[in-house]
Amino acid sequence: MSNTSFYDLVASITERGRELIARRRGQSDPAQNVASMIDLCEALLSERGEASGLAQAAEILDLYQTLGEAEKLTLFTALLEKFGPNRQKLQEVVRRWLEDPAHADAGDLHYFSEAARQELFRRLNRAPGGTHALVHMRADLLALLAKHKYLAPVDRDFAHLLAVWFNRGFLVLRSIDWSTPAIVLEKIIRYEAVHQIHDFSDLRLRIDAPDRRCYGFFHPSLSDEPLIFVEVALTEKIPSAIGPLLMVEREFVRPEKARTAVFYSISTCQKGLAGVSFGNFLIKQVVEELRRDLPNLTTFVTLSPVPGFIQWLQSAEDLPVNADQRSALQALQELDWPDKTEETERLQKILEPLAAHYFLKAKRADGRPRDSVARFHLGNGARLEQIHWLADKSPKGLRDGAGFMVNYLYDLDDIEKNHEAFVKTGDVTASSSVKKMLKAEPKIRALVGVAPPPRG
Amino acid sequence: MSNTSFYDLVASITERGRELIARRRGQSDPAQNVASMIDLCEALLSERGEASGLAQAAEILDLYQTLGEAEKLTLFTALLEKFGPNRQKLQEVVRRWLEDPAHADAGDLHYFSEAARQELFRRLNRAPGGTHALVHMRADLLALLAKHKYLAPVDRDFAHLLAVWFNRGFLVLRSIDWSTPAIVLEKIIRYEAVHQIHDFSDLRLRIDAPDRRCYGFFHPSLSDEPLIFVEVALTEKIPSAIGPLLMVEREFVRPEKARTAVFYSISTCQKGLAGVSFGNFLIKQVVEELRRDLPNLTTFVTLSPVPGFIQWLQSAEDLPVNADQRSALQALQELDWPDKTEETERLQKILEPLAAHYFLKAKRADGRPRDSVARFHLGNGARLEQIHWLADKSPKGLRDGAGFMVNYLYDLDDIEKNHEAFVKTGDVTASSSVKKMLKAEPKIRALVGVAPPPRG
Amino acid sequence: MSNTSFYDLVASITERGRELIARRRGQSDPAQNVASMIDLCEALLSERGEASGLAQAAEILDLYQTLGEAEKLTLFTALLEKFGPNRQKLQEVVRRWLEDPAHADAGDLHYFSEAARQELFRRLNRAPGGTHALVHMRADLLALLAKHKYLAPVDRDFAHLLAVWFNRGFLVLRSIDWSTPAIVLEKIIRYEAVHQIHDFSDLRLRIDAPDRRCYGFFHPSLSDEPLIFVEVALTEKIPSAIGPLLMVEREFVRPEKARTAVFYSISTCQKGLAGVSFGNFLIKQVVEELRRDLPNLTTFVTLSPVPGFIQWLQSAEDLPVNADQRSALQALQELDWPDKTEETERLQKILEPLAAHYFLKAKRADGRPRDSVARFHLGNGARLEQIHWLADKSPKGLRDGAGFMVNYLYDLDDIEKNHEAFVKTGDVTASSSVKKMLKAEPKIRALVGVAPPPRG
Amino acid sequence: MSNTSFYDLVASITERGRELIARRRGQSDPAQNVASMIDLCEALLSERGEASGLAQAAEILDLYQTLGEAEKLTLFTALLEKFGPNRQKLQEVVRRWLEDPAHADAGDLHYFSEAARQELFRRLNRAPGGTHALVHMRADLLALLAKHKYLAPVDRDFAHLLAVWFNRGFLVLRSIDWSTPAIVLEKIIRYEAVHQIHDFSDLRLRIDAPDRRCYGFFHPSLSDEPLIFVEVALTEKIPSAIGPLLMVEREFVRPEKARTAVFYSISTCQKGLAGVSFGNFLIKQVVEELRRDLPNLTTFVTLSPVPGFIQWLQSAEDLPVNADQRSALQALQELDWPDKTEETERLQKILEPLAAHYFLKAKRADGRPRDSVARFHLGNGARLEQIHWLADKSPKGLRDGAGFMVNYLYDLDDIEKNHEAFVKTGDVTASSSVKKMLKAEPKIRALVGVAPPPRG
Repeated sequence: MSNTSFYDLVASITERGRELIARRRGQSDPAQNVASMIDLCEALLSERGEASGLAQAAEILDLYQTLGEAEKLTLFTALLEKFGPNRQKLQEVVRRWLEDPAHADAGDLHYFSEAARQELFRRLNRAPGGTHALVHMRADLLALLAKHKYLAPVDRDFAHLLAVWFNRGFLVLRSIDWSTPAIVLEKIIRYEAVHQIHDFSDLRLRIDAPDRRCYGFFHPSLSDEPLIFVEVALTEKIPSAIGPLLMVEREFVRPEKARTAVFYSISTCQKGLAGVSFGNFLIKQVVEELRRDLPNLTTFVTLSPVPGFIQWLQSAEDLPVNADQRSALQALQELDWPDKTEETERLQKILEPLAAHYFLKAKRADGRPRDSVARFHLGNGARLEQIHWLADKSPKGLRDGAGFMVNYLYDLDDIEKNHEAFVKTGDVTASSSVKKMLKAEPKIRALVGVAPPPRG
Repeated sequence: MSNTSFYDLVASITERGRELIARRRGQSDPAQNVASMIDLCEALLSERGEASGLAQAAEILDLYQTLGEAEKLTLFTALLEKFGPNRQKLQEVVRRWLEDPAHADAGDLHYFSEAARQELFRRLNRAPGGTHALVHMRADLLALLAKHKYLAPVDRDFAHLLAVWFNRGFLVLRSIDWSTPAIVLEKIIRYEAVHQIHDFSDLRLRIDAPDRRCYGFFHPSLSDEPLIFVEVALTEKIPSAIGPLLMVEREFVRPEKARTAVFYSISTCQKGLAGVSFGNFLIKQVVEELRRDLPNLTTFVTLSPVPGFIQWLQSAEDLPVNADQRSALQALQELDWPDKTEETERLQKILEPLAAHYFLKAKRADGRPRDSVARFHLGNGARLEQIHWLADKSPKGLRDGAGFMVNYLYDLDDIEKNHEAFVKTGDVTASSSVKKMLKAEPKIRALVGVAPPPRG
Repeated sequence: MSNTSFYDLVASITERGRELIARRRGQSDPAQNVASMIDLCEALLSERGEASGLAQAAEILDLYQTLGEAEKLTLFTALLEKFGPNRQKLQEVVRRWLEDPAHADAGDLHYFSEAARQELFRRLNRAPGGTHALVHMRADLLALLAKHKYLAPVDRDFAHLLAVWFNRGFLVLRSIDWSTPAIVLEKIIRYEAVHQIHDFSDLRLRIDAPDRRCYGFFHPSLSDEPLIFVEVALTEKIPSAIGPLLMVEREFVRPEKARTAVFYSISTCQKGLAGVSFGNFLIKQVVEELRRDLPNLTTFVTLSPVPGFIQWLQSAEDLPVNADQRSALQALQELDWPDKTEETERLQKILEPLAAHYFLKAKRADGRPRDSVARFHLGNGARLEQIHWLADKSPKGLRDGAGFMVNYLYDLDDIEKNHEAFVKTGDVTASSSVKKMLKAEPKIRALVGVAPPPRG
Repeated sequence: MSNTSFYDLVASITERGRELIARRRGQSDPAQNVASMIDLCEALLSERGEASGLAQAAEILDLYQTLGEAEKLTLFTALLEKFGPNRQKLQEVVRRWLEDPAHADAGDLHYFSEAARQELFRRLNRAPGGTHALVHMRADLLALLAKHKYLAPVDRDFAHLLAVWFNRGFLVLRSIDWSTPAIVLEKIIRYEAVHQIHDFSDLRLRIDAPDRRCYGFFHPSLSDEPLIFVEVALTEKIPSAIGPLLMVEREFVRPEKARTAVFYSISTCQKGLAGVSFGNFLIKQVVEELRRDLPNLTTFVTLSPVPGFIQWLQSAEDLPVNADQRSALQALQELDWPDKTEETERLQKILEPLAAHYFLKAKRADGRPRDSVARFHLGNGARLEQIHWLADKSPKGLRDGAGFMVNYLYDLDDIEKNHEAFVKTGDVTASSSVKKMLKAEPKIRALVGVAPPPRG
């Protein structure tokens, strides 16, 4: 039985579970259910809710399980329209606030402008499984938001409340290894977003080898659900390609011999927590953790993809290449270019300076680097340490980053300084080797019309 | 070594700890420390805080340990004055909101009127021990608030955030027994607010006897700190006095023979969480818990004090007594009246109807019962089941409640109905025996000038 | 990567680990290692061992990892020859004992006849991982024992000590489910001996479905190693075939609707604990556990293979069949006979009475049933409840049991009675349906020469 | 309520519990119970026991709770007389063994000479709480043994089995601190044998101060029961008296500043495990543990009493003192001698050389030191480091050791060497300062008739 069909099975089990709930409730009509739900939400916010709130909250969450996409839209629209602030009261408060512009306190303004749905969410959270249900509800909302932008205010309240609840102070760092419950490991397989894990055997190579580590943040109310996790390889030197790290047959490095910890994959797990930032804290805490366990470690780097490079090549109007180079880049359209030695040598000479340019000079309108992964690590105070040619030959690696990978270096002593420079001036802290790569950049610029290689 | 001197010792240890921190920091001047703290708080909210926020947060919390009362006042005043919302931005948002009165969303109004201190608190919470520190900080604020009412907006934000964080969905119910760590039990001794526990031996009688139970709510980030706990006695019948329950030498009831669970003491533990309501949830969940463990239990009642009765007797202008009765009540001023048989018989006849009147008819301006304990349980949907004469002869019991105790009955089936009646009409649900007690009430009313018995 | 190759990998990892130990020790010569080991064992038993015993024990266990089969034989032979009792002292004790035949106590005889290796094992057990290592050592010994029967006295001591240490009072029953650490689940996959589990996805169907349970016994010193486990299916009725239970796509039974718990697979895990009986205790405790969790369960049965049936058919000299029947049985040699309707009908008529005869009448020399699984369950006090035709069509099921499966019923009230009858008289307690099946048995007996169907 | 009366209460609770069991059983006659017990023991060993053994074992253990001292004697006598080996079978085995004096194996001799009670104990151990019950049973037996020496063979079997079960490999070292469950801490208070702990407040000073540690060995089947524990003080220098260590008001040493770990109290907890040695392992493992946690620690010593010194002074026939000294020693009879400056100075000059003599030269018949504590630590490989004058002025300290205390030094590198010297030659490894103290010893010897100071 293949992995995929297994998860299909699980999905179908869940589906059956939902039908069951629907049937047990004696009303398999989701439209009716969403109406009941909205009534119950109003009751939960009323005084009646104070006495029997838990039961009502649990029922609301159960009913939610029976809704299809259309009913969810109905529900979220109701949350927008019927569960805002008390407008009459709010107008009065605003009037009062305007009467005294010197007034020191805007508390009334703040608390009376709070949408009732926030209190609703807080009451739903009291039910068993409430936190989990609300995170899923927001994931559903985010999926609808793309088409139904008017729901943004509901999402803003969701996002706010979840950020408050998933405050880093409440998160627990846990090591994930072969002694971890399968129910958690299964999710590591499912949520791994950078270098796919196929099954438990594959996973074991990532978490049970002597030179591998994995850590995740967990929330006490979601104990079987990692929020974010990072996979670490212990190596002697800074690695220049992903392939050797993921090889099945390889020599293990004895942990006490390792000098370098490589963060080669970071994945967030909960769509419903989009926008709640954990990665920053996770990497730093894992650095501390590893330093304590393995005092011989001296270097903490990532081995990261370059997800936006090809897109930049395709769309940038001021690509610093000449006509010959431009036409050479056409070769990237062939999927097998990495196999042609001559080709790769020519491309390397053109692309390495372009990559350095991409990181150091190409900026978005707001002055930040174009690369999302770069923005994340540089914003955390890391340094761009090395750029590696042909480091990821997977289809995804070639398609997005022309095979480039980079190391971002975390030196806890410099993090604050780097971060400040990055924030204030947009300056990217980079090693001299990266800067040198830039210097190889040809002087000819502003060539237009380079045909971008096709996607796929 | 007596118990008291031990806690003095612990206090002095803590004191020494604070000095140590102060000295280590090389500046024992709290005034300077509070200035540093305020600077650090600003830095923590700035962009710099994003990179090295945890360290800054930890330092702020450390510095707080060195502050005296005066410096705390300085700090909280700064939180009020310097850490409000961005007023310029807020005015703009208010203007925009007024321009479109039909505007569906008040989100900008809400989020731009949020005081910066809320974000500050959230960032402080990220540090190890942050939650604990913030709860203590608010306890300090509450102590200052009585004299410095202008700090109320700061407390409002504290209270809001703590209520969101200590949402019932995050709390864990734990049984507290002789297998509980001493660090928790020590706090049960310290926080017991109704019937004092003297030491561990005394505590053991409350939690380690076969017919005793104790449960508390805990928060995952404060794992050694109960938030609220309830002590339960398993009995055959509804008890009519506290003395027999607390006796050292007594026959144990075999749990499987018990029919009644008596909640005879509920104590909240964290001053800093004042106003965050747990008791309602605690009692109901403990009822569920006990029902599952001991299916023979049929009755769930409290044995509660009547803390406001004497005060009412002293201050009520329309006490339904005649002149003779009034003068008879003078006897309550003698502390040994319960020992005089004749006296007590006379008093019982006068006081029982008065007690029934106190619960059923005497109301505050808002239409709620005058008794705080009554308001709590009746608001939870409990029923006033029995009123017991001379049920608590302790000095406190006599001074506050003339020795009366009452049972509030929790019948999960009626809770919602009772609660709704109470909320809508102010009606107190009471048993027929309590109502009958009221009928014995003398018809003469509105006597003024009854001299209240002196306190103490 | 397939499942098999993964375990090969793990094996190769372990192999590399051993080489490592060998190399680290600076002597990759196992012959030398076994000599060192034997010296160290003597030292460990000497007075020197009292001071630095743990280090010596750990080193002995490490050295053992480097031994090949030949060296292990050397070691076990040394344990036999050099680590027996002190013979001189023993002779003296025997003489003394003989002098006083009325002597009440044989303590000296017992303690002075104990082989020194027992104390050696006990001292080895003190090292970290000692218990685990000793269990493996005995597994190695058992493998050698078949060829080298003279080692039996060493095994007898091993077996005795392990039985004492793995006393049921020290074992912990644990539920095995999807929250169990992968390191344990991996072993469930590996040790399943009845109905193969292919991988984690396959396992999940056995332990994570609502109508499945799995329980195992664990020893505190071997916390990642199940000793024995049983897989349970919750069903409405007593099942008559294994196929439907193991189907991937099937309707789940809601646990509260289930009336029957089916023990469909019991596997022991540790070869080194052969002869230490756990199964008896496991089944009974799981019955208790299930009864408490699911009070609606009324029936506890196995669904068991009949591993010795075909062999009996082949070898029994007094098979109660006539010549026609005998030749009909030839059909069993064709592996596809279950697909031929006519054939199966004819065979069923002949084989069902034979199966009943096999269980109820065919006995070994010692009067016990010929079937090993029958001996186990009947010896535990279970009753032979049903015999199912064509219940297991797997190659193994056909080859060993002609496709038969049976239910043994565990009725805790009758267990003792059944057991006593079985032990005293050899009587097999069986249901009336099984007895009736026997009556269909043809009267013609004692036919010789029926050609047994070939194996494989 | 004082501490003592509390434990009386607990005792009375237990007593009531026993009566309860007796009454529930409907037969409060212990004599009848012991007869039933013996019958049940026989049944448990029979074949019937295989099916329903757990229930029988549980019943036997319950019945044991109802026995008084007389019945226990009856029971143990039955265990001696009725539960020995099968004598007929044993005689046969002995005969066979004698026939072949060259026989390599004494296995039959060993296994057929085993008393049936050993198997009985093993089967009793299977019941819930069995291990605990057997440990208590042996404690009862030991109490009877003093008067009824003929029970020794039963104790020998108990001792053997318990030593096998409580093998160090099964023990778990746990830190005991203020987070430890009260049910364990209560036992630390009760079992502390060296420097009394009065109550939980007193205990807290020993386990919850920053410069204190406590560790114990636990067995998985007795999780609430420490087997042995050691109390540790972290200090800068080797301490010379117990008083300052136990002072309530004292300066704490910051753990990272400590250089010395002082084992100032070791207590065994289970009378029923007398003779099973743990202390040796405990100290060494705690040394390892502390070294890892606090790498700044360099010195590991005890601060130990000298329990046999005064008794030796009283009884030794060859005390190396002259007549003047002898009469000076009379002063020890006055309990307040430590308060008289002149006296103590004189005594110190006489007693210090005597103490050194006591440790280094005074030996028992077997060549071992007379002091039991010295035998323990020197046997473990420790070195006698310092002898301290007036180090323990408690009544017990003065009465047993004339106020002397000593440090035994654990240097893991020398342990084996010291141990071997001690075992082979009886040589006591001592520091030069101790040896120097001996040289001050007066040359006059063999004075007889020194009047011993009276006890108490």
